[in-house]
Amino acid sequence: MSGFAAGEFQARTTRAQALMDDAGLDALLLSTEPEVRYFTGYLTRFWESPTRPWFVIVPASGPPIAVIPSIGAPLMGQTWVHDIRTWRSPDYGDDGVSLVAGALREVVPKGGKVGVPSGPETHLRLPLESWRALQTRLEDRVCGDDAGIMRRMRLIKSDAEVARIAAACAVADAAFARVSGIAREGTPLSQVFRDFQRLCLEEGADWVSYLAGGAGQGGYGDIIAPATDTPLAAGDVLMLDTGVVRDGYFSDFDRNWSLGAATPETRSAYARLIEASDAAFAAARPGALAADLFHVMDGVLTGGAGGSDAGRYGHGLGMQLTEWPSLIPADHTVLEPGMVLTLEPGLELGRGKTLVHEENIVITETGARYLSTPAPRVLPVI
Amino acid sequence: MSGFAAGEFQARTTRAQALMDDAGLDALLLSTEPEVRYFTGYLTRFWESPTRPWFVIVPASGPPIAVIPSIGAPLMGQTWVHDIRTWRSPDYGDDGVSLVAGALREVVPKGGKVGVPSGPETHLRLPLESWRALQTRLEDRVCGDDAGIMRRMRLIKSDAEVARIAAACAVADAAFARVSGIAREGTPLSQVFRDFQRLCLEEGADWVSYLAGGAGQGGYGDIIAPATDTPLAAGDVLMLDTGVVRDGYFSDFDRNWSLGAATPETRSAYARLIEASDAAFAAARPGALAADLFHVMDGVLTGGAGGSDAGRYGHGLGMQLTEWPSLIPADHTVLEPGMVLTLEPGLELGRGKTLVHEENIVITETGARYLSTPAPRVLPVI
Repeated sequence: MSGFAAGEFQARTTRAQALMDDAGLDALLLSTEPEVRYFTGYLTRFWESPTRPWFVIVPASGPPIAVIPSIGAPLMGQTWVHDIRTWRSPDYGDDGVSLVAGALREVVPKGGKVGVPSGPETHLRLPLESWRALQTRLEDRVCGDDAGIMRRMRLIKSDAEVARIAAACAVADAAFARVSGIAREGTPLSQVFRDFQRLCLEEGADWVSYLAGGAGQGGYGDIIAPATDTPLAAGDVLMLDTGVVRDGYFSDFDRNWSLGAATPETRSAYARLIEASDAAFAAARPGALAADLFHVMDGVLTGGAGGSDAGRYGHGLGMQLTEWPSLIPADHTVLEPGMVLTLEPGLELGRGKTLVHEENIVITETGARYLSTPAPRVLPVI
Repeated sequence: MSGFAAGEFQARTTRAQALMDDAGLDALLLSTEPEVRYFTGYLTRFWESPTRPWFVIVPASGPPIAVIPSIGAPLMGQTWVHDIRTWRSPDYGDDGVSLVAGALREVVPKGGKVGVPSGPETHLRLPLESWRALQTRLEDRVCGDDAGIMRRMRLIKSDAEVARIAAACAVADAAFARVSGIAREGTPLSQVFRDFQRLCLEEGADWVSYLAGGAGQGGYGDIIAPATDTPLAAGDVLMLDTGVVRDGYFSDFDRNWSLGAATPETRSAYARLIEASDAAFAAARPGALAADLFHVMDGVLTGGAGGSDAGRYGHGLGMQLTEWPSLIPADHTVLEPGMVLTLEPGLELGRGKTLVHEENIVITETGARYLSTPAPRVLPVI
């Protein structure tokens, strides 16, 4: 599958330019990995290095302009982007600031506006002092927010994007199906984590960007912790939550297992999680709100008490492990075909014990479709 | 090995407070993964999710204050930090801004200064609109740069940190030693990448945050690209460059192999890379400058022409894949015991072909010590 045809990026650019026109923006200035990749297809793990800033400018018309460190030129040269401006970074005197300011002055008229993603889930990936210097060099052009354009665009996945997310989910599905071979009584949780990542790679993950989980008697105390060396014990519930990457797109779902027979309370709690995600799946359709899915799940889980400290019952998914929207009462995003969501109900069982469950779905014209293979309806026993 | 004793974090905090006093700062405000972890020990892969902002405040005296989403409270509660203030994130109305502003108003007097990392290699990990809102709520307290305090502190690794980096390097060493078992003529490069990550996990990596590389006749065209499905061919030079994580610390070095016999030109280029890193190792001692190591390598590689488009011949290493300093002519950082560096000479062989080589070292009282097992002096053949 790998990268997209140039038409995908052209369509994104054209759509962005229509939204920019509506919002009175003369350019978008982008600096983070998913933003740069969204308009260029530039895929590399080199973002792991925080040293160098990278920029893409989407002008009011015409293709994007990449303003990047010269180390990235060979790879960017393989994308559909042809206007690639480079400097030898790191440059302590001027780490791309003059170059990107000059490019913005070219494409934005005096008095014009540059849109920069500024709202929830965004950040600016460059030093504050570079950001200040950049703004002073724009000569009567101002930076403001991007009018939510990046969010609005990335909320809706193309068919090509959905296919990649589905492929990532299939990798995680296949790895989860093999967990009984790596997790048994006495195995340290840290070993389970290493082996599970190996299974993901064997099943076709390009890399494994996220793995969290837990194990404990009848539930676990934390859902975002790295593994400890504590051995699995009879009566533990083991949970693994992974984000595998395939062709630049993520899966994000978890699975639970009981080490030996589970108590009736644990089985019942697990069944309630499944009931909650089933209910959300049934409610997931164009026109429903993100908040509706929260309330449907919260009705099953707490009788409508308003959720838990985890803060939400699911979220968007795609180029990043988590994206907009959030399944919370305050999120009134109207669901549309092409939105990819996680359904992530959780139960606090008291005494610092939690159970969580997660599926990945895509909104279709008429309802929703699972991208993950739904979890067993009864807590599986290892 | 795992986490540090509380004394490590206490010592860091005390040292930061002395530097803050010198710089006239009343608090540090930190928002990125390594910054938060540096003062708390909070280690999680959950940072992969961009949704929620996280904050740590280092006051002028006393322990750090964590201002974090409630989902992180159980794990933060296991660290030495006891003042943990949480909100249920995501909160579209106020995603931590009031809480962190309130904490800053408590510990910073009116007219006081808050230091925020603002220089090279830093960024602010929160939405621009939250950053603006936060500043308006500080009531006669101002945010400025952190006077380079985070950089100065993190440049020098403690013995406990060096031990963790050495452990990560040992994992990569062991995985590199097994590459002849996974890479042969006909193997797609993408399969080599998957298998190599598996080897890193088998050898004890907690996770593999970085893998890049390339393969091509007598050299490769790119050193930061993800793998293609192109099969390895006789005459290819294969390069794998990995950053494995163990107990929260990185290795970062690469290795090269020739598929079948290499040409004299390729063998000679490889030997020159080794000669360059040897020369830099010999020059690496307290009192030398980062720039000195650049010039020593550049003398061997280009006769002193001034480097290549990659921009540098090495960099710092630790909690992140790359850290300050950079081995470039403009970097006059004075080397001190406890600095961990990569030596990363590269040669452009023309026609879009490159060879690179990398070692990891730590500066000692009298010179330097290898953390990676130095590469073979002759290009190894598979």
